[in-house]
Amino acid sequence: MPAYKAPLRDMRFLIDEVFDFHGSYAANGAHDATPDMVNAILEEGAKFCEQVLAPLNRSGDEEGCHFDNGVVTTPKGFKEAFAQYAEGGWMALASDPAYGGQGLPHSLGLVIGEMIGSANTSFGMYPGLTHGAMAAIGAHGTDAQKQTYLSPMTEGRWTGTMCLTESHCGTDLGIIKTRATPREDGSYAISGTKIFISAGEHDMSENIVHLVLAKLPDAPAGTKGISLFIVPKFLPDASGEAGARNGVACGSIEHKMGIKASATCVINFDGATGFLIGEPNKGLNCMFTMMNHARLGTGMQGLCSGEASFQGAIQYAKERLQMRALTGAKFPDKPADPIIVHPDVRRMLLTMKAFNEGNRALAYYTAQLLDQVHSPDESKRKEAEGLLAFLTPICKAFMTDSGLEVTNLGMQVFGGHGYIREWGMEQLVRDCRIAPIYEGTNGIQALDLLGRKVLGSQGKLMLGFTKQVHKFCEAQVQHPQLHAYVAQLAGLNRDLGDITQRIGMAAMKNPDEVGAASVDYLMYCGYLILGYFWLRMAVVALSKLDEGGSDPAFYQSKLATAEFYFTRLLPRTSAHKAAIEAGSASLMKLSADEFAF
Amino acid sequence: MPAYKAPLRDMRFLIDEVFDFHGSYAANGAHDATPDMVNAILEEGAKFCEQVLAPLNRSGDEEGCHFDNGVVTTPKGFKEAFAQYAEGGWMALASDPAYGGQGLPHSLGLVIGEMIGSANTSFGMYPGLTHGAMAAIGAHGTDAQKQTYLSPMTEGRWTGTMCLTESHCGTDLGIIKTRATPREDGSYAISGTKIFISAGEHDMSENIVHLVLAKLPDAPAGTKGISLFIVPKFLPDASGEAGARNGVACGSIEHKMGIKASATCVINFDGATGFLIGEPNKGLNCMFTMMNHARLGTGMQGLCSGEASFQGAIQYAKERLQMRALTGAKFPDKPADPIIVHPDVRRMLLTMKAFNEGNRALAYYTAQLLDQVHSPDESKRKEAEGLLAFLTPICKAFMTDSGLEVTNLGMQVFGGHGYIREWGMEQLVRDCRIAPIYEGTNGIQALDLLGRKVLGSQGKLMLGFTKQVHKFCEAQVQHPQLHAYVAQLAGLNRDLGDITQRIGMAAMKNPDEVGAASVDYLMYCGYLILGYFWLRMAVVALSKLDEGGSDPAFYQSKLATAEFYFTRLLPRTSAHKAAIEAGSASLMKLSADEFAF
Repeated sequence: MPAYKAPLRDMRFLIDEVFDFHGSYAANGAHDATPDMVNAILEEGAKFCEQVLAPLNRSGDEEGCHFDNGVVTTPKGFKEAFAQYAEGGWMALASDPAYGGQGLPHSLGLVIGEMIGSANTSFGMYPGLTHGAMAAIGAHGTDAQKQTYLSPMTEGRWTGTMCLTESHCGTDLGIIKTRATPREDGSYAISGTKIFISAGEHDMSENIVHLVLAKLPDAPAGTKGISLFIVPKFLPDASGEAGARNGVACGSIEHKMGIKASATCVINFDGATGFLIGEPNKGLNCMFTMMNHARLGTGMQGLCSGEASFQGAIQYAKERLQMRALTGAKFPDKPADPIIVHPDVRRMLLTMKAFNEGNRALAYYTAQLLDQVHSPDESKRKEAEGLLAFLTPICKAFMTDSGLEVTNLGMQVFGGHGYIREWGMEQLVRDCRIAPIYEGTNGIQALDLLGRKVLGSQGKLMLGFTKQVHKFCEAQVQHPQLHAYVAQLAGLNRDLGDITQRIGMAAMKNPDEVGAASVDYLMYCGYLILGYFWLRMAVVALSKLDEGGSDPAFYQSKLATAEFYFTRLLPRTSAHKAAIEAGSASLMKLSADEFAF
Repeated sequence: MPAYKAPLRDMRFLIDEVFDFHGSYAANGAHDATPDMVNAILEEGAKFCEQVLAPLNRSGDEEGCHFDNGVVTTPKGFKEAFAQYAEGGWMALASDPAYGGQGLPHSLGLVIGEMIGSANTSFGMYPGLTHGAMAAIGAHGTDAQKQTYLSPMTEGRWTGTMCLTESHCGTDLGIIKTRATPREDGSYAISGTKIFISAGEHDMSENIVHLVLAKLPDAPAGTKGISLFIVPKFLPDASGEAGARNGVACGSIEHKMGIKASATCVINFDGATGFLIGEPNKGLNCMFTMMNHARLGTGMQGLCSGEASFQGAIQYAKERLQMRALTGAKFPDKPADPIIVHPDVRRMLLTMKAFNEGNRALAYYTAQLLDQVHSPDESKRKEAEGLLAFLTPICKAFMTDSGLEVTNLGMQVFGGHGYIREWGMEQLVRDCRIAPIYEGTNGIQALDLLGRKVLGSQGKLMLGFTKQVHKFCEAQVQHPQLHAYVAQLAGLNRDLGDITQRIGMAAMKNPDEVGAASVDYLMYCGYLILGYFWLRMAVVALSKLDEGGSDPAFYQSKLATAEFYFTRLLPRTSAHKAAIEAGSASLMKLSADEFAF
């Protein structure tokens, strides 16, 4: 397993030089997040992830979680690592100060989240789900609910889950069967079985707070009849501690392709006591308020696994001696040249680097919007919400699809050794493979983007972003070194408007045109957006080089990677455009029985 | 796990209707391979694979192989299945009649091999390696060696291996360290350690015949100093039976991502008795004679896993109820519509179908060339050899890369359930993932194609195929329904000539241009070639429909899939072309230390 080192230099490039987190922290009133504080947190976070979490990654995969009669034991060392995580105040970092949190910006939490996910994706699931549950309680809970649950969760003594999926429905939550029956004391009896519940049962915390979607007896059919309930494993007693055991039990854990140290549970609710959160029948809305966070978090997993894979591949490519450079031996004294001399190995490494660093820029930009949603300035808030609505499904789907490509390339760089478990490269592929599936499959993200967001707003949500790209291109059109790439980006940006309009027209006649175009449309947008961020990074890099400061190699590397991205990856948009333009005709011709004979 | 059903209808479409195997069997003197015989073999093969091998696939993955002090035990049922395989005469099918084989055409062996690989990839490794070893002994062994080894191997009593890789070299065999010291009796003492030896040790056969690359004491450096040796686990005694144990031991087995029921062994040779096969220092040449077989066989694994994945996905997509069709409920009486109504699910299924059926056409065509290499007509032989040289690296790399895409799509169709081991879909991804790596990584295949084959022959080996495409396009240019696709294909075919010429010119100045273009070049060729076969299939399908015979739905399905391929997959060539044209500049800019900071 490659030793993980947090890519602090690249993180600081984005935080300090490209996006100016400090300026926006000051503007948004996050006065505690001083540059010194941010730096100290990044370095402490790196140390914790490198020294505590990364060493448990391989062993956690090999050992997995154990299930025994309702009790789930996490792999050796995970419980202790989680205790350190809680003690270190990492759960509290971006949490509400009213309940013991440090109230630091979400964007900083996301950067730490990247380190955690790169060091140990499975571990990251436990705090990740807890943060999700905290966000839902924070947004929709009563004051009493917040007091009861958020305080111990912020301390890391209690953890949380999101219980949505049932065996017959994942995407289609309108048809869930879990029932909530009102009781006289105002609580509800929750009965039903939920599956795929990450962190649903484990040995890390004193209590587990399940957020459960269920239907009231008189609920309307479909998604408008779903309510959200807090169902703790142990009912809080008068002093706020975990008290009597509730009617919640783990029926089994899943045997999965990867993230094996993350317990994926079947959870049975058998007349369990639940407490309504938010309004009756508005449960799905309550969930949606935290979707942006959760989906960006899932998108991050593509970057996290990709970064870990890149670190392994680059080290191996520098050390592994095999064949001679096509232009003649570079290390004639060695039995062969290191494989990093070969253009095709470099193609793989640069593809990884270009996706990772591009995805990191996209993610950090989006995280900044998550901060901006809390701005005191309403127009800023609205602007951020619009951009988030457009970018979130792209972050989720594009970052995970490209992350999967990256981890597969990292494995490929290792040749046969990549297939052997002890090297750790294939684990990154397996761990990453869930990210395009859960939290709404990438196909669902694409429908959300094209159908609900872009066409649903008559293009307005797209224009919020493409106008920004347009303005940037206008400003840089005469850039002495970058003008050709600016023109390329501007052309793709214009095309996106035309493409969108054509799909919109076609969809009015035939709604299937949306589903026929959606995934290619999302991928087109993703490549375009990464192009935008690569150019923004290149502009910064060039101006730093012009200034003649330190670190010229870092900025030169950015420029070379931008060139690689524009010449070798961005042209993939042409294939996606052609697929979009093919429309739904060839997709809908066959009856279900005509697919195979 | 989806139950595997051999796709006999599609196989027969290619065998009978597109490629006319029967005509070429007759022309090549394979008189035993009558249509009735071929049919009977296909049906028996299907039965064996569906009923014996497929049921062991999941259990084999879960159990894996066991290693205990040099002894390897295969998963429950594998030994018995192999006995049935041998008894059924499957090892003998395409083997030399002089040593007990049935002498049927290799192309028929490949079709049966497809069924085996789809039913149980791990199982297929044992006979696959044995066939490889048999081919090497058959081509380069003395009569006595053939008599000694081929007979028990044809019976399936002995199995074989290929021992090439060492821990410090896989691609770069010139630097192997295993040594062969001549003994007075004409044998050699073999010492060294080989890794990644598939079927290197197991409990299925009475003896294991290792073919080992090693260096003689006075061998020249590099690949011109490698010799090939037969090193049996048990030395044959006077009666030809397995006798005294040789100095060969299994040191351990690898823990891998997939193909877990295939024992991947470290094999230690400690002064083991070996017998030279072929000439001294010509070992790599001996290996190369069987490369075409082995690489096509590896390419098949992409199709095999892809076919199994498609069968699972199509069944699931017809049964899984989730959401309503965008155009309104199709099954209003059910709680939701089956997901096959959704255009994006169809996009995934059709991508799988188009790759699988296109890859099958490419593979069967190539298998026919393997038969033709034994033609009595020398010009036919030469033609086949040229086409094989060009197509083999494409089969290996394109079929495995697209196969990996197919298995990942199949998993995606299952949503969260795809990530759960019991459904079997993720196993297909893991099993398939080795195919782009071993038998020469896909990057090495691409260098072989572009550098050694195409540019090394001044384009001649490419022209052998592109002329065929050109002629076909000329003949079909006025086809009433297909002319637009014919024009698209003809354009890509012309472009390939131009692209090749430009790379050739650039490479004269800078050899790195070959490595910079190679993978995208191979993928461009792969898409083009599948386009050619899809058009050939479409032409046949249309003429069958015109004839008005039976099975119109089958032919309509072919036409719709061809349309899908041409409009949604073939345009990917544009992205590969752009990447090729980007050249090596952005790849070679960074020093090794400038990839990460």
